[in-house]
Amino acid sequence: MLIVMKHDASAEEVTRVVDVIEEMGYEARPMPGKQRTAIGLVGNDGKVNADRLESLPGVLEIIHVSQPYKQVSREWREEPTIVQLANGTRIGGGEVVVMAGPCSVESEAQIVGIAHSLREAGATILRGGAFKPRTSPYAFQGMGEPGLKLLAKAREETGMAVVTEALDEESLARVAEYADIIQIGARNMQNFSLLRRAGRTGKPILLKRGMAATVKDLLLSAEYVLAEGNGQVILCERGVRGFDTHTRNLLDLTAIPVVKSLSHLPIIADPSHGTGLRAKVIPMARAAVAAGADGLMIEVHPDPERAMSDGAQSLYPEQFEELMQQIAVIAEAIGREMQPSLTGRPVRAVV
Amino acid sequence: MLIVMKHDASAEEVTRVVDVIEEMGYEARPMPGKQRTAIGLVGNDGKVNADRLESLPGVLEIIHVSQPYKQVSREWREEPTIVQLANGTRIGGGEVVVMAGPCSVESEAQIVGIAHSLREAGATILRGGAFKPRTSPYAFQGMGEPGLKLLAKAREETGMAVVTEALDEESLARVAEYADIIQIGARNMQNFSLLRRAGRTGKPILLKRGMAATVKDLLLSAEYVLAEGNGQVILCERGVRGFDTHTRNLLDLTAIPVVKSLSHLPIIADPSHGTGLRAKVIPMARAAVAAGADGLMIEVHPDPERAMSDGAQSLYPEQFEELMQQIAVIAEAIGREMQPSLTGRPVRAVV
Amino acid sequence: MLIVMKHDASAEEVTRVVDVIEEMGYEARPMPGKQRTAIGLVGNDGKVNADRLESLPGVLEIIHVSQPYKQVSREWREEPTIVQLANGTRIGGGEVVVMAGPCSVESEAQIVGIAHSLREAGATILRGGAFKPRTSPYAFQGMGEPGLKLLAKAREETGMAVVTEALDEESLARVAEYADIIQIGARNMQNFSLLRRAGRTGKPILLKRGMAATVKDLLLSAEYVLAEGNGQVILCERGVRGFDTHTRNLLDLTAIPVVKSLSHLPIIADPSHGTGLRAKVIPMARAAVAAGADGLMIEVHPDPERAMSDGAQSLYPEQFEELMQQIAVIAEAIGREMQPSLTGRPVRAVV
Amino acid sequence: MLIVMKHDASAEEVTRVVDVIEEMGYEARPMPGKQRTAIGLVGNDGKVNADRLESLPGVLEIIHVSQPYKQVSREWREEPTIVQLANGTRIGGGEVVVMAGPCSVESEAQIVGIAHSLREAGATILRGGAFKPRTSPYAFQGMGEPGLKLLAKAREETGMAVVTEALDEESLARVAEYADIIQIGARNMQNFSLLRRAGRTGKPILLKRGMAATVKDLLLSAEYVLAEGNGQVILCERGVRGFDTHTRNLLDLTAIPVVKSLSHLPIIADPSHGTGLRAKVIPMARAAVAAGADGLMIEVHPDPERAMSDGAQSLYPEQFEELMQQIAVIAEAIGREMQPSLTGRPVRAVV
Repeated sequence: MLIVMKHDASAEEVTRVVDVIEEMGYEARPMPGKQRTAIGLVGNDGKVNADRLESLPGVLEIIHVSQPYKQVSREWREEPTIVQLANGTRIGGGEVVVMAGPCSVESEAQIVGIAHSLREAGATILRGGAFKPRTSPYAFQGMGEPGLKLLAKAREETGMAVVTEALDEESLARVAEYADIIQIGARNMQNFSLLRRAGRTGKPILLKRGMAATVKDLLLSAEYVLAEGNGQVILCERGVRGFDTHTRNLLDLTAIPVVKSLSHLPIIADPSHGTGLRAKVIPMARAAVAAGADGLMIEVHPDPERAMSDGAQSLYPEQFEELMQQIAVIAEAIGREMQPSLTGRPVRAVV
Repeated sequence: MLIVMKHDASAEEVTRVVDVIEEMGYEARPMPGKQRTAIGLVGNDGKVNADRLESLPGVLEIIHVSQPYKQVSREWREEPTIVQLANGTRIGGGEVVVMAGPCSVESEAQIVGIAHSLREAGATILRGGAFKPRTSPYAFQGMGEPGLKLLAKAREETGMAVVTEALDEESLARVAEYADIIQIGARNMQNFSLLRRAGRTGKPILLKRGMAATVKDLLLSAEYVLAEGNGQVILCERGVRGFDTHTRNLLDLTAIPVVKSLSHLPIIADPSHGTGLRAKVIPMARAAVAAGADGLMIEVHPDPERAMSDGAQSLYPEQFEELMQQIAVIAEAIGREMQPSLTGRPVRAVV
Repeated sequence: MLIVMKHDASAEEVTRVVDVIEEMGYEARPMPGKQRTAIGLVGNDGKVNADRLESLPGVLEIIHVSQPYKQVSREWREEPTIVQLANGTRIGGGEVVVMAGPCSVESEAQIVGIAHSLREAGATILRGGAFKPRTSPYAFQGMGEPGLKLLAKAREETGMAVVTEALDEESLARVAEYADIIQIGARNMQNFSLLRRAGRTGKPILLKRGMAATVKDLLLSAEYVLAEGNGQVILCERGVRGFDTHTRNLLDLTAIPVVKSLSHLPIIADPSHGTGLRAKVIPMARAAVAAGADGLMIEVHPDPERAMSDGAQSLYPEQFEELMQQIAVIAEAIGREMQPSLTGRPVRAVV
Repeated sequence: MLIVMKHDASAEEVTRVVDVIEEMGYEARPMPGKQRTAIGLVGNDGKVNADRLESLPGVLEIIHVSQPYKQVSREWREEPTIVQLANGTRIGGGEVVVMAGPCSVESEAQIVGIAHSLREAGATILRGGAFKPRTSPYAFQGMGEPGLKLLAKAREETGMAVVTEALDEESLARVAEYADIIQIGARNMQNFSLLRRAGRTGKPILLKRGMAATVKDLLLSAEYVLAEGNGQVILCERGVRGFDTHTRNLLDLTAIPVVKSLSHLPIIADPSHGTGLRAKVIPMARAAVAAGADGLMIEVHPDPERAMSDGAQSLYPEQFEELMQQIAVIAEAIGREMQPSLTGRPVRAVV
């Protein structure tokens, strides 16, 4: 059960609620957020009689939640969360949104160049790693802050919003300064400390599903961000560990409708990591949209053969144009629209 | 390497090829099929000089194959296999085909009634289990042969083709007598003896992927059928074992484009078993078609709450109608067509 | 709930019980076994009042079972099942039993020769495949019945009992004629038809866990054998599908104590298939015994480099001797004994 | 390839080596450690001619490594790494070491009390979480620094060494101050930033395998610590994600001999998390030692029913005593000894 306090509730009012909860024989977990404080009541085996709490000063409402995750659940909030970016892109509101770009930022020519062609094709968000989590300490670890500056430059020139990954406290501070959306990668999905700090930035968070994470685990991780008063969370299915080596990961597209029924948060799919194979990205991007994804994250590189990371799963720019046209028809077929492109031209090519 | 003999090659010619292979220091595996005999040459570490073999009498051609599976591979056969049924349905030829029906045949009223409504909605193949593989020996095991007779009755009345599962030698003989397509279920995917016998019936075989089977395992199992001279095999992705209990299985839609690139055989998806949840069947059916599936297998029951098996994943007839309309728009969007319905009316509803 | 009939209950008495169950509004599932008939009562949501049934003529006892599997459960039978073979070997009774031999029977010299050295090392059961389930139709499929004859010859010469796999109805008939224990392999764990037939032979059955099978699935498959009146079932953990390619399968040794707490059936481990790596067989054999396994199944070949199948996981005979000595000390350490060897000498070498 | 510099190599000498590598057309990755600098040479497709590098001033040796991980590999270092603690405990040197204690530190009475009884039973390292990674933000997150102080108090009173988990930069600084061994948990196994920082503390690191991590992934994560010049790493198998809900995780004991063959680092097992079930901890602890583990980590609580976390998998103190006696006999059986207890009495009880 959650006791949600009014925006202007005083510290004394919060303390009073805590005291009453403890008098009732339960435990109280105050969760101060930016906007308001909620107080979790735990330790109850069954239903709690909330009469005494409802009438206390400062209490806005009482929410009974049947899931271990609370604020991310449909029970807590009926209508879908829509994440709105400065460049007009809306995620979660019916439009299909595309984030695209290289695995890693490598140079100004690379990132600004590709941003222009992605914009032309209809993407409105640019991805590109400046801080890269690599399984080997000897692999290319990203350009760091200079990479962020190049992303900002690309944004300036094209109007695209920027999403890029934060790995730790240090890079989070840098990323929060430059990015429109902060990505928390699959390997950090249960880095709860980073989730809390990311939540506190107030910026939209793109949270990728971990390789061994259940949907429930994913929602509980998102709950860490919401518990900080930040409701701007976008979930991302990017493949879980599977036993078949034909693909790099096992893209679990069913997670999309499952998340939709349990939570009000938007969810997108990343078929690039989800398959690890360039030739499978287009069909699986189509499938993700058909399954109800609110968007896609796609790796595109001007010259995949020479990419410093993930070349094998990066599309050629021409393939990306084709992908945009293919998903545009799927989106339309299921009664959704593509996020309007920044060029003013419709995404769908004249056939 | 495979040495394919001419249709009219004599037993002596086959023996001669075998002898020459053995003289060359390799092993020969003659594979007599209904149409022609192929002789596998194994035991080679690297490339074999085929000059001596090519010129022997009765030899049609020599095929070098790099995969452990041979006849199912794209290397062996470039053009897609199309399975053609008596009622005009073609599987693998561009049209999207739908097989639908209850998990189990339960009564004449049930199966004939549902067949009529499935036909109206545009399905051309009726599914329904007469012999059921159940994890518990105490669960309903199917009606047996009387169930097959009811399927035949439904076919007579509606023109739908019939697909139903064979579990063993005995049921195979019965199923082969009544069905248009013989299903080999996921639990029997590596029941190699059953695969061989099913192959020998000459009937089209629907082979479902096992819960722990890689795509390579699936193709090798299909190879058992082809090795009997029966090329009429339809593969089916129906979910593998996953770790998340939110869904019954983990539907691996990426297997569809993976199979398409490795093999010429058609592949369909079964989102009913793949998710185990009625509410997820429609989005995942759309996704499967968007991923390139040649068809779908869908569980539909006139009264799912009272189904004798798999009720929780069976659609209501009205939901199935909606599904047909939704996949019709997806099929069209990706340049495919729905298999023409038996009613003569187009599948897509007037919007 | 199970209503167990007396050994000499008449057909009329069984019918009467069935009628009463149906009058009570439930469904009856008569399960005629070789020894006695049990009648499952299903369709109950909660507890059933058994008064009316208990007093009917021919009824021996009423058993309330909380698991989906019944006769294999500890609830049904408290004391452990002990499988007793003609050569004195007891499985499930405290002694640690070792089954060893090559993957496939290849020749008389091979199987008789290895049997002699296994006997010397202390194994009392000889394994060797005559009918081999192979993922590829072009791989060596076993010697067939001649292989069974060679196993019988090796038994004659050494006194070892013989365990070998049956794949289908046909091979089952042959295997039942020659073997002391009939193996049902992992790929056939849910070949329910084969399980039933194997049950009916009345011979001890070695049932291997399937690659995607839960412990519950395994127990339900064993239930198929017991439902035929054959309680002589030995379970075998042989590794499930895992995501790490360092080992062929993922040996789930925790399944051993889990099975022990749920069922009265003996369980052994097969670290040869469980790891797929010769160098890991000895440590994992030790671990299996330490975890409480009633025995082991180990692949040993006189010349693993030239084995026709599974060479990479087969031990050299000298390694097998070392393994026997290592597990003998573990068995003793946990208060168990090795099954007395057929030579009359203790298994443990003088150190 | 790694070019290892002498301890006293100058910055100029390092720069010179880097320059030569780049002249040769490869990339150089200098890895400054506390003790010495190594320079990785990457970008080579095949073998590199190292003649030019070997003779440069300051170069100690050239190491050719075939694995993606370098310094953790057996190729890099033949003899086993032994981690030596202040209280005399040695990990990796033949003795079997036991770390035990409650999931979370809860109070002084709890932790000091349990430490005394663990010491009596023969454990030499005390575990206890002060900072807890919890899937839910509303679950008990640990006592924080006060918990560390209680651990230090327990150490003072009993002489036990202390291992406890660090979650992030902040807690790492605190933990490094108090603990003898810093634990990096499964959820942070690929938190590369934390791994680097932990490496830099110079303290022994206990690195737990992630739930979806291959052995290769685990070794690459350890490489991050070694790349910081810290070779004091202990690996820990604690179960991976499996599909069977009978156990919480799937304890992969084969990882123990696999790690032993690939790396010189010690590896222990955690059967408490590995099974999640109190009743399975003892048999799996025995199995882990039999498989060759250098030690165990075991959860023990004075009153498991009232534990604030992980109660269901925590042993009662009496069960822990029994476990110590059972593993002592296994250790002896395989020619190892128990780490001498801090009481001076042998671990093995007089039978």
